[in-house]
Amino acid sequence: MNQYIKFNPSKRYDLILLGRVAVDFNPTDYNCPLSQSTTFKKYLGGSPANIAVGLARLGKKCGFFARISDDELGTFVEDFFIHEGIDTSHIKRCTNGEKIGLTFTEIRSATESSILMYRNEAADLKLDVSDIDEDYLSQTKALLISGTALCESPSREAALKALLIAKRMEIPVIFDIDYRAYNWKNEDEIAVYYSLVASKADIILGSREEFDLTERLLDLNGTDSNSAAYWQKQGASIVVIKHGKEGSVAYTNDGQQYRIKPFPVKLLKSFGGGDGYASAFLYGLMEGWDIMDALEFGSASAAMLVASHACSQDMPTVREVNEFIAKEKAEYGEMVARG
Amino acid sequence: MNQYIKFNPSKRYDLILLGRVAVDFNPTDYNCPLSQSTTFKKYLGGSPANIAVGLARLGKKCGFFARISDDELGTFVEDFFIHEGIDTSHIKRCTNGEKIGLTFTEIRSATESSILMYRNEAADLKLDVSDIDEDYLSQTKALLISGTALCESPSREAALKALLIAKRMEIPVIFDIDYRAYNWKNEDEIAVYYSLVASKADIILGSREEFDLTERLLDLNGTDSNSAAYWQKQGASIVVIKHGKEGSVAYTNDGQQYRIKPFPVKLLKSFGGGDGYASAFLYGLMEGWDIMDALEFGSASAAMLVASHACSQDMPTVREVNEFIAKEKAEYGEMVARG
Amino acid sequence: MNQYIKFNPSKRYDLILLGRVAVDFNPTDYNCPLSQSTTFKKYLGGSPANIAVGLARLGKKCGFFARISDDELGTFVEDFFIHEGIDTSHIKRCTNGEKIGLTFTEIRSATESSILMYRNEAADLKLDVSDIDEDYLSQTKALLISGTALCESPSREAALKALLIAKRMEIPVIFDIDYRAYNWKNEDEIAVYYSLVASKADIILGSREEFDLTERLLDLNGTDSNSAAYWQKQGASIVVIKHGKEGSVAYTNDGQQYRIKPFPVKLLKSFGGGDGYASAFLYGLMEGWDIMDALEFGSASAAMLVASHACSQDMPTVREVNEFIAKEKAEYGEMVARG
Amino acid sequence: MNQYIKFNPSKRYDLILLGRVAVDFNPTDYNCPLSQSTTFKKYLGGSPANIAVGLARLGKKCGFFARISDDELGTFVEDFFIHEGIDTSHIKRCTNGEKIGLTFTEIRSATESSILMYRNEAADLKLDVSDIDEDYLSQTKALLISGTALCESPSREAALKALLIAKRMEIPVIFDIDYRAYNWKNEDEIAVYYSLVASKADIILGSREEFDLTERLLDLNGTDSNSAAYWQKQGASIVVIKHGKEGSVAYTNDGQQYRIKPFPVKLLKSFGGGDGYASAFLYGLMEGWDIMDALEFGSASAAMLVASHACSQDMPTVREVNEFIAKEKAEYGEMVARG
Repeated sequence: MNQYIKFNPSKRYDLILLGRVAVDFNPTDYNCPLSQSTTFKKYLGGSPANIAVGLARLGKKCGFFARISDDELGTFVEDFFIHEGIDTSHIKRCTNGEKIGLTFTEIRSATESSILMYRNEAADLKLDVSDIDEDYLSQTKALLISGTALCESPSREAALKALLIAKRMEIPVIFDIDYRAYNWKNEDEIAVYYSLVASKADIILGSREEFDLTERLLDLNGTDSNSAAYWQKQGASIVVIKHGKEGSVAYTNDGQQYRIKPFPVKLLKSFGGGDGYASAFLYGLMEGWDIMDALEFGSASAAMLVASHACSQDMPTVREVNEFIAKEKAEYGEMVARG
Repeated sequence: MNQYIKFNPSKRYDLILLGRVAVDFNPTDYNCPLSQSTTFKKYLGGSPANIAVGLARLGKKCGFFARISDDELGTFVEDFFIHEGIDTSHIKRCTNGEKIGLTFTEIRSATESSILMYRNEAADLKLDVSDIDEDYLSQTKALLISGTALCESPSREAALKALLIAKRMEIPVIFDIDYRAYNWKNEDEIAVYYSLVASKADIILGSREEFDLTERLLDLNGTDSNSAAYWQKQGASIVVIKHGKEGSVAYTNDGQQYRIKPFPVKLLKSFGGGDGYASAFLYGLMEGWDIMDALEFGSASAAMLVASHACSQDMPTVREVNEFIAKEKAEYGEMVARG
Repeated sequence: MNQYIKFNPSKRYDLILLGRVAVDFNPTDYNCPLSQSTTFKKYLGGSPANIAVGLARLGKKCGFFARISDDELGTFVEDFFIHEGIDTSHIKRCTNGEKIGLTFTEIRSATESSILMYRNEAADLKLDVSDIDEDYLSQTKALLISGTALCESPSREAALKALLIAKRMEIPVIFDIDYRAYNWKNEDEIAVYYSLVASKADIILGSREEFDLTERLLDLNGTDSNSAAYWQKQGASIVVIKHGKEGSVAYTNDGQQYRIKPFPVKLLKSFGGGDGYASAFLYGLMEGWDIMDALEFGSASAAMLVASHACSQDMPTVREVNEFIAKEKAEYGEMVARG
Repeated sequence: MNQYIKFNPSKRYDLILLGRVAVDFNPTDYNCPLSQSTTFKKYLGGSPANIAVGLARLGKKCGFFARISDDELGTFVEDFFIHEGIDTSHIKRCTNGEKIGLTFTEIRSATESSILMYRNEAADLKLDVSDIDEDYLSQTKALLISGTALCESPSREAALKALLIAKRMEIPVIFDIDYRAYNWKNEDEIAVYYSLVASKADIILGSREEFDLTERLLDLNGTDSNSAAYWQKQGASIVVIKHGKEGSVAYTNDGQQYRIKPFPVKLLKSFGGGDGYASAFLYGLMEGWDIMDALEFGSASAAMLVASHACSQDMPTVREVNEFIAKEKAEYGEMVARG
């Protein structure tokens, strides 16, 4: 076991995630504006949903706090979760016509992607404080809160309630900042809620831009080392800051830092990598690996995802990640990502 | 010219429509629940949008009062309209993140279809009284109001404003009831607004169920002849009541009635027919045809639509409808639909 | 009985009113800005509520469709109505914390009054279509709709439902335009709903400004005679247009017009007169008086109201109005108001 | 100076308060249900507004973050503040018709009081993150946050932003829990926000019931000593827990506790005491008094308030409090409140 976070081995679930479950529509005729794409493939989506599928494919047992729509798209995501072995006992249907969030992806080229989200009256944002079951929460080794759940009430209060209870129960909290501009009202609001949650998290994952949003009211100077130091002073054990193509850095609360780079692959699209990274990195931590090994595993999964059409559906198994790493190292050298 | 409605030939537009423009996603792997369909084709949709395309394909010049989203799906529908020769000068983009309505169609079998609509904060329902340009309205031979535009404010008031101005300008008003349960709050509300508009319309089109909703507070007895008599007393010239597979009846204000039946075709889906029917029937009226000829033309277009995958995109030209009628009559006899 | 409106004598209620019941706070230390007034008297208020009290004081039996708050101020208005003999069986309490509307009156001088209204989430605007009891409505000789009830849903639809049912039952409808800027979104919306209701009313009461708002989309020329002619063509029997200190005119659908002037009195405040006028004029009509006699009676009540501190509480009895008229005529001559 | 909190003497304001400014209407004909009271006196109200007036009367310089209505009642409260010497530079007018909150007090007897609040679309709850001026905040010795400001967005986020900035600037934060049921959606929501703010406050003031609401998700056992220990561990220096007629206890973070009792007075009403208590207790702290002396001063002001008709308007000066204490001690003995 890694020395930074203690995961209680007696718990039933490896991870319970809180946040959105959504549906992605990715065009099969891409390399053009979305308005011109005519045919779309439907996939389970939503960052924490993808991470859950990623961890399930890696052999971990996940649970989920979520609200989905009471329609065929809700049935689709629930069936998909069940098929992947994810516990759906705390995924509830909305009852007032709220719809599951949609993401239409526009792939103009391998490096120019954008998304068009349907998030008005989104089902996931109706997660309610009454949905947060203390008994269920007590059965997990860790809780992951997706920052998107904080963007609107009542999901915001449900996430904060889960956070407070997890802290009281001494369950490690992972905060995946996962910034999406939709639904947020202003940047101060983002900073208020991100920083409140970050100040109580054990692991924080985010891009440099996401840390900047989080620290807006804090007068830090925007360097990774200052960010890490600040949040570790608040209680965080591991702070991971991502810099896209430049790679990412993990800061641990013993003053160490670990750098990882992307594996070289032919990109199909420029999204989905983050969820592969998070699920495989967390897998490594849960397995008690060294931070560097966990980071490399995460970076490999990320590379595999940006080279494939789906996010959730293309999450790799442990064997597949290992084969990918072996192949890359054979081609580019042992230090391809660690260099 | 038919004797029931006078269309002023000096006007620039044959028809201005008011109501929703939407996007349809129809599965290409159908005959299963929507949750299991994996691939979808994207089409322009929305009943009045389909009617506009239908009339444009038949050679008529249409305009439109609508609000669409300020994103790539909005661009898609605007481009499609422009390509069809429909005037888009009064189709505006929403500015507060409202999204264009979506319709996912579920085709379980040729006769079991259903739809899943995304209509929360739908762009079309943001049509505003300030969008109703009197000068534009003065340039049309007729105004078509889709009943769905009445389901919520501010679109409701925009439709009522257009109605009042059209009446003042003596422009014939066509009321296509087009009932969609989404967004309506209760049946009394439906009856209030449908009956207010129907009482001022020159042509009313609807199914028997739609007339029942309209007449809920009026204590009529639910027969077609009573409906027709009541609305004609209020001022309607033509009342068309549809009975699905049983065909439909047009009542004219000279006491005549005309019955038409569906043409026999192999169904692919059970929707889309109504918009083909409306566009082709109105085309016949505008051409000054006898009511029976207009009805037969409408019924032929309806049959062609339910046998094809799209709604808008598969709207036929005059030659195609005529060829279809000729082929059907050759196979089933001259009175196949008029019998 | 007057020849313009038939009131069915077999009905239990003389008038059922639909609209707001509110609470007025009138300062006792006035002739200063409201910010400086320190002490306030509490009265039942709201235009249709005042009219109901006015008619009750004159001996008529009234009923009411309304929603009030579920608190002590709701209890106050209900108790007041019961004490005046007004039927409260269809006045319901709101259940979601909506509050009864408040009106703080500012009396800067006898001629400069203004009001500060509390109308956010006002109880009266929660009147619902389900509150409109057909059986109750069938028991009245006439229905009065206050235009303020049209300013927002769901009260708007409740008023329209009552209108449609009253028309079906051939119950005379009195439309008191009663314009209050609060809650209305724009002038087109006002024109849409006012004109829809006015086009189905038997008696319309309003100031010149209120008729202008009603006719905004109709391209009339803003003269009283044009207004009267237009609405009488739509079906109205009596159209009363008020011009403040200049007096008012009643147009009847036999082409007659009747003019009345205010009685000279020492004003205390510049509001409340309209409700006295309406109740006393309607009383005269219901008694079958000549239009001129009804107008004089209305004008007398109006004069009494603007000279007193309250609206509802100071509504006069028949004897009091007659004494007032006699006294005025003794002082100023028989034609004081009819001149 | 007391040893628990350091107030920076170089700052311009003694205290900036954040929360509601409201208007109270207290009946002059009381000892009856509110529905029967006919005459009302108008006063400035709202807990933090009363505290500001209290401190101003005691000679302290206060500022305020608030939103008020853009009408005569807004003018009234602003004029009142200016007259008391309170800085109003950061009190802004609402622009969308929001109204200042109202409180009608019902005084059934000296011990049975209740309040009827108008808080729908209340101006104070529109306080926005953009209203929180860092420069202004930097000029105060302390910040007081009223818990009512947390009940709804956007006021909630404005309060949280002020809290985070004050902490960053090392300005002591006073959290006056001030629970009002209005606007809160559920008890979990209350617990989430109260506990987030309490965990960062230097001084917490509340009744036992208010601490129970705050601690609902924390699994404490509801005793004062546990509450004090928990919040002091989070960082609080002084925790004051009130028990109504039983008096109150102040726990300091050096493990001391101080008990005070109410002074015996003839009650007129059962509210208003808390704001007198808070203002006079904080005055004592700011003066550097011993905790017991500050508590006694607070208890004296509380006693004076419950014996008078207004809250704000009857706040005492230092001399008046001292005279009251001297008189009480002369009559009941030196230890009358400290016993």
